[in-house]
Amino acid sequence: MASANQANESSINVQETLDLEQNKSHNERAQWVLNAPEPPSLWQELADCVKETFLPQRKGFKNEPRAKHLVSFLLEMFPILHWCRNYKATKFKNDLMAGLTLASLCIPQSIGYATLAKLDPQYGLYTSVVPPLIYAVMGTSREIAIGPVAVVSLLISSLMQNVEDPVANPIAYRNYVLTATFFAGIFQASFGLLRLGFLADILSHAAIVGFVAGAAIVIGLQQLKGLLGISFSTNKTDVISVLNAVWKSVHPSWKPQNFILGGSFLSFILITRYLGKRNRKLFWLPAIAPLLSVILSTLIVFLTRADKHGVKIVKHIDGGLNPSSVHQLQFHGKHIGEVAKIGFVVAVVALTEAIAVGRSFASIKGYHLDGNKEMVAMGFMNIVGSCTSCYVATGSFSRTAVNFSAGCESTVSNIVMAITVFISLEFFTRLLYYTPMAILASVIISALPGLIDLKEIYNIWKVDKLDFLACIGAFLGVLFVSVEIGLLVAVTISFAKIILISIQPGTEKLGKLPGTDLFCDVDQYPMAVKTPGILIIRVKSALLCFANANSVRERIMRWVAEEEHEDNQQKAQKNIEFVLLDMSTLMNIDTSGIASLEELQKILHSSGTELAIANPKWQVIHKLKLSNFVEKIRGRIFLTVREAMDSCLGSEMATI
Amino acid sequence: MASANQANESSINVQETLDLEQNKSHNERAQWVLNAPEPPSLWQELADCVKETFLPQRKGFKNEPRAKHLVSFLLEMFPILHWCRNYKATKFKNDLMAGLTLASLCIPQSIGYATLAKLDPQYGLYTSVVPPLIYAVMGTSREIAIGPVAVVSLLISSLMQNVEDPVANPIAYRNYVLTATFFAGIFQASFGLLRLGFLADILSHAAIVGFVAGAAIVIGLQQLKGLLGISFSTNKTDVISVLNAVWKSVHPSWKPQNFILGGSFLSFILITRYLGKRNRKLFWLPAIAPLLSVILSTLIVFLTRADKHGVKIVKHIDGGLNPSSVHQLQFHGKHIGEVAKIGFVVAVVALTEAIAVGRSFASIKGYHLDGNKEMVAMGFMNIVGSCTSCYVATGSFSRTAVNFSAGCESTVSNIVMAITVFISLEFFTRLLYYTPMAILASVIISALPGLIDLKEIYNIWKVDKLDFLACIGAFLGVLFVSVEIGLLVAVTISFAKIILISIQPGTEKLGKLPGTDLFCDVDQYPMAVKTPGILIIRVKSALLCFANANSVRERIMRWVAEEEHEDNQQKAQKNIEFVLLDMSTLMNIDTSGIASLEELQKILHSSGTELAIANPKWQVIHKLKLSNFVEKIRGRIFLTVREAMDSCLGSEMATI
Repeated sequence: MASANQANESSINVQETLDLEQNKSHNERAQWVLNAPEPPSLWQELADCVKETFLPQRKGFKNEPRAKHLVSFLLEMFPILHWCRNYKATKFKNDLMAGLTLASLCIPQSIGYATLAKLDPQYGLYTSVVPPLIYAVMGTSREIAIGPVAVVSLLISSLMQNVEDPVANPIAYRNYVLTATFFAGIFQASFGLLRLGFLADILSHAAIVGFVAGAAIVIGLQQLKGLLGISFSTNKTDVISVLNAVWKSVHPSWKPQNFILGGSFLSFILITRYLGKRNRKLFWLPAIAPLLSVILSTLIVFLTRADKHGVKIVKHIDGGLNPSSVHQLQFHGKHIGEVAKIGFVVAVVALTEAIAVGRSFASIKGYHLDGNKEMVAMGFMNIVGSCTSCYVATGSFSRTAVNFSAGCESTVSNIVMAITVFISLEFFTRLLYYTPMAILASVIISALPGLIDLKEIYNIWKVDKLDFLACIGAFLGVLFVSVEIGLLVAVTISFAKIILISIQPGTEKLGKLPGTDLFCDVDQYPMAVKTPGILIIRVKSALLCFANANSVRERIMRWVAEEEHEDNQQKAQKNIEFVLLDMSTLMNIDTSGIASLEELQKILHSSGTELAIANPKWQVIHKLKLSNFVEKIRGRIFLTVREAMDSCLGSEMATI
Repeated sequence: MASANQANESSINVQETLDLEQNKSHNERAQWVLNAPEPPSLWQELADCVKETFLPQRKGFKNEPRAKHLVSFLLEMFPILHWCRNYKATKFKNDLMAGLTLASLCIPQSIGYATLAKLDPQYGLYTSVVPPLIYAVMGTSREIAIGPVAVVSLLISSLMQNVEDPVANPIAYRNYVLTATFFAGIFQASFGLLRLGFLADILSHAAIVGFVAGAAIVIGLQQLKGLLGISFSTNKTDVISVLNAVWKSVHPSWKPQNFILGGSFLSFILITRYLGKRNRKLFWLPAIAPLLSVILSTLIVFLTRADKHGVKIVKHIDGGLNPSSVHQLQFHGKHIGEVAKIGFVVAVVALTEAIAVGRSFASIKGYHLDGNKEMVAMGFMNIVGSCTSCYVATGSFSRTAVNFSAGCESTVSNIVMAITVFISLEFFTRLLYYTPMAILASVIISALPGLIDLKEIYNIWKVDKLDFLACIGAFLGVLFVSVEIGLLVAVTISFAKIILISIQPGTEKLGKLPGTDLFCDVDQYPMAVKTPGILIIRVKSALLCFANANSVRERIMRWVAEEEHEDNQQKAQKNIEFVLLDMSTLMNIDTSGIASLEELQKILHSSGTELAIANPKWQVIHKLKLSNFVEKIRGRIFLTVREAMDSCLGSEMATI
C-alpha cells in the first residue's frame, strides 16, 4: 500500500512537472510563431521566381566544366542527339509502320484542313512536311503527330477574314496567314525561352473541352458546303448564320450526287472505325480508310466523268517541294498589329492543344514532358514553316492517337510521315485532280466526333459545376457567336471563377475530433465536438483582403450572436468568452484585412469577448507584426488551436 | 527484480496494445476523411448565400408574432425610433454645440464644393439641408457628417463634362447632375436592400488612400483658378494640362490682390488648425476659422470695394429653401445610359467613402455599423435629395472628424447643422454677395492636407508592397491621366493582385516541429526537422486549378529530383519513397487540378515513388472521390500528416 501511495504521489509529481513542462513549451512554441525569421520580401520572391524560371536545372549542378555545359545545352535543345544513340532497327520498324499509317491519314486531312483555313490544298500538304521534320529533332514527345489541325485551321481563317477577304484577294490573304504563322512561331519560341510555360495554362481543361466541342460542330457545318456541293458566302461561323446560308443555297444549287458520294464514303470510314474499335488488331483499318476513300472516289469520278454531272472536284493541286515564302511575309502595312494579335491567339491555342495531347500520352507511357522545351520546338517549327509556305502546325488529337496505337517508338514516325507526304507532293498530286470535294468533307467530318468528348463533359459536370459553366460557356460562345467570343468567354469564366473562389467570404466552425488534438470543420466531420464558451472559426479562403474582409468580420459577429442566442435558449448562461481564429488556411492578408481584424478585435473586446489567433502563416504573421496587430491583441497568438485553447481556458480558470 | 521484469513486460504489452489501438484509430480516422458527408452542392450554397444575405437576422428568431415583425421592421428602417426614447437634454446640449460647429465649417465648404462640381453655389448649401435630415432618421452612424464632399464633387464634374458642357449649357448640365444623383440614390438603396454590401468593398483600402490623395492634389490645382483670380478653360484634370493652362493664363490676367487675400486667410486657417492640434480644447477654433474668414474677407471687400480693383467675388446666390427639382430629372434622351453609368460610379465611390468614415469612428466608440442599412439610408437621402435640388451627398472625412471632436452624441447634430444651413439660406445669402472667390478656394485647399495620408501610405508600403502598388497606381492615374483612369487602375491592380496571389504556384517543404506532432514550413520554422525518404509538401494557395496545377506539379517533380541529388551527394543511398501532399490549405480543386495530380501520381509511381495525401478539405475530398482519384492512389489519404507518415513508414518497414 505504502509503495502504491508513493507511486501515486510520484505520478502526481510527474503530472505536475509535465504540466509545467507543457506550459513552458506552449510559451516557447508561441515564441516560435512570433519570432519566425522574416519571410522573403517581394523583391527576393521576384528574384527567386526569375532564377527558378530561367535556371531551374542549375541548382546543385554547379561545378561542371564549360565544354560539358555546351554538350548539355545541345542535348537540351536537340533531344534527338540524346536518344538516337540507343535507336535500334526494331524500333525503326515500328516507327516506319506508324509513320506510313500516319501519312495515309495525314494526306487527306491536310488537304481538307487547308480548305478549312481557306488556302489552296497544297498548303496543307506543305504544312505536313517541314514542321514535323523540325519537331522531330527538337521535340520531347514521342507520340505527338505534327501537322495542320482542324481547330487551328478554323481559328486562323475565322480571325484572318476580318483582315483580308480570302475570296477576293487570295494572295494577300495567304501572305497574312503566313505572317501570322511567323508571329505565332516567334511567340511560342519566346514563351519557351522565357519559360512562360504557364501561358499554355491560360485556358482551363474544361474550357478547352467546351471550346473544341463547339469548334467541331462549327467545322462540321462548314463541311456542308462540300458535302452538299453548294456554295454560299457568309463570313460568319455561328450555327444560325451558316444554317441560314445553307438553307438559302440548297434550293437553287444543290447537287445530290455530291451528297450520295460523300455520304457513302463517310459511312464507310465510320464503319471501319467501328470495326477498328471492336478489334484492336484492325487499328490500321480506320487509319487508312480516308486515303482508301480518296483513291476509290477519285477513280470512280475519273471513270464515270461524274464531274461533268455536277460532282465538284479538287482540280489542280500544285506539286513539288515547299516553295520558299520568305518574301511573302508582310512586316509593314496597317494590318501588322492585327496580324500579330492573331499570331498570339493562334500560338496560345495551338500550344494548349499540342501540350495537352503530348502530356496525356506521355503520362500513359510514364515519362515527363517539359512544357518549355515543347514550346521552343513548336516555335521553331512554325518559324521555319512560315518561311517554307506552311501555315500554323501543331499536335493533332486524332493523328497522335493513331500514331500511338500504330506503336510508334520515337519522333522518327513523324520523319517517315513527312517523307511520305513529300513523295506524294512530288509525284502524286496530279492524280488528285479528280478527287471529289465531298470526300474531303467526309474525311474532315469523320474526324470530328473524336473532338466532342461527351464523357469528359459529363465528368466535368459531375465533379465541378463551375468548371462545367466555363465549358458550356465556351461551347455556346463558339456555336452561337464566333470563335473569338468562345475563347473570350472561356478565359473570362475561368478567371472569374478563380476570383470568386479566392474571395468567397466563407467561414467554418471548428470542433475537436475525439481522441485527437485536431480541430476540424464540424460540417465535414460530424463527430467533432464544440467547446462551450469558445468559438473556433476558420476562414475558407487563402486571402483576407479588401474584397472579403468585411464580410468575414460580419459573419464572425453573426456566429457570435447566434451562439450566444442558442446558449441563452438552453439557459447555459455561458457566453462566448473567446473567438479563436484558426489562420492555417490564410496564405496572405492585406491592409484592409488587417484593418478588419483590428475592428473585429475592438468590437468583440467591448462586448467582453477576446480574440485569439492560431497558426498564422509566414506572410500573415509578418504583416501582423509590422502593423502592430500582435501588440493590439496582447500576444494571443499561438502555434495550434489546441495550445490557444489550453491557454484561453487556463486564463479563464485564473480569472474565476 | 521479478516484479520489475513483470512491470516491464506488462508495459511492453501495454505499448503493443497502444500501437494496435493507434493503428486501428488511424484507419478509423482515415475513414472519417473518406466517408465525410457530401458537401453542400453549388445550388445549395447559392441558396444558403441568398438566404443568409437576405434573412440574416431571422435565424433562431422564428416564433414572433406578425405585429412584432412590423415594429422590428420599422425599428430596423428608422434607427431614430430606437434611440430617441433614451435621448436626454444633456445629449441634446452636446449635439447642439457639435451641430453649430459643423454648420460653420459646412457653409463655406458647401459653397466651394458646389463650384468644384461646376454648379451654382446655392446647390452646395441645398445639399447640406435635405440629405442630412433624411440620414438623421435612417442612418446608424452617430458621428458621420452628411453633405457634399470634395472627391465626389470632383468625380461628378469630371465625368459629367464629357456628357454636357457646364459652361455652355449650365442648365442641361445641372439637370444631368441631378439625374445622376437620382440614379446614384437608386443604386445605393438597391445595394442595401439586395444586401450587396460587398460592392462598397470593390476598392481596397490602399487604392482608396491613393485615389483620395491624388484627387486632393487635383482639387488643389483646380483651386488655383480662384486663388490666382484667373480663368482658364481646360476640361482635363491631370496635373500637366492644368499647370499648362495656369501658366498660359497667369501672364495676361493674373490679379495679385486675389492671391494676397486668399493666401493670408489660408495661412490664418492653417495656423488655427495648428493651434487646435496643439491644444485639444481649442478644437472649435479650426472649425469656425473658415466661416470667420468668409465673414472677415467679405467685410473687407465690401468696405474697400476691392471687387472694382480685380478681386473676384461670388456675386448673386439664390436664397430660400431648396426648390423642387422633380421635373428637372431627365429619363429620356441619348445620354441616359451614360448618366446612369456615372450614377453607378459615383454611388460606389460615395458609399466607399461614407462607410469607411462611419466604420472608423464606430470602431473607436466600439459599436458596429451595418453596411447594408447605411447603404439604404444613403440611397434614400440621395433619391430625396435629387428631387429637391441636391447633388450627391455622402459622409465627409473632415467634417465627421470635427463632429466627433465637438462631442456629438447622435445624428441630431446633423439635424442642427441642416437647420442652421437652412436659416442661412433663407436670410443670409445676400450677405455673401461680396465674398471673394479666393477665400472659397482657401477653404477648400485648407481641407485637402487631411485627405493626403502620408503616414498611412508609408504604413501600406511597410506592410504590403503589392497594396502599395495599387495605392500608387491609383494616385498616379488620377494625377497624370484622369479621375476615371485612376479609379480603373485601382480596381484593376486590386483584382490582379487577388488573381496573382490565388494562383501563385508556390509550394513549401514541411518538417516536424520538435516535441510536437506538427509539420510546418521549414523556412518559417528553422527548427523543423525533415524526415529522410519522405518529402512533405504543402501547396501555398487555396486553389489547385488550371492556372497553377501544372507549375505545382513540375515544382514537386523538381523538389524530388533535388532531394535525390542531395541524398546522392551525401551517399545516403536513401531515395525519396513517398511524396506526402499536405492539402490542408487547399479549399478547392478543379478538373485540371485533378488531372495534374493524376499525372503526378503516374510519373512518381513509374520512378518508384508513391504519392500520399493528408488532410484534404471538404470540397477537395469530395471531388477526388467523384473523379475516382481516391482509388487511383489506392486509398493513401489520411487525416493528418503525422498519421500519413506513420502509415508510410509502417508500410516501408513491412516491405523491408
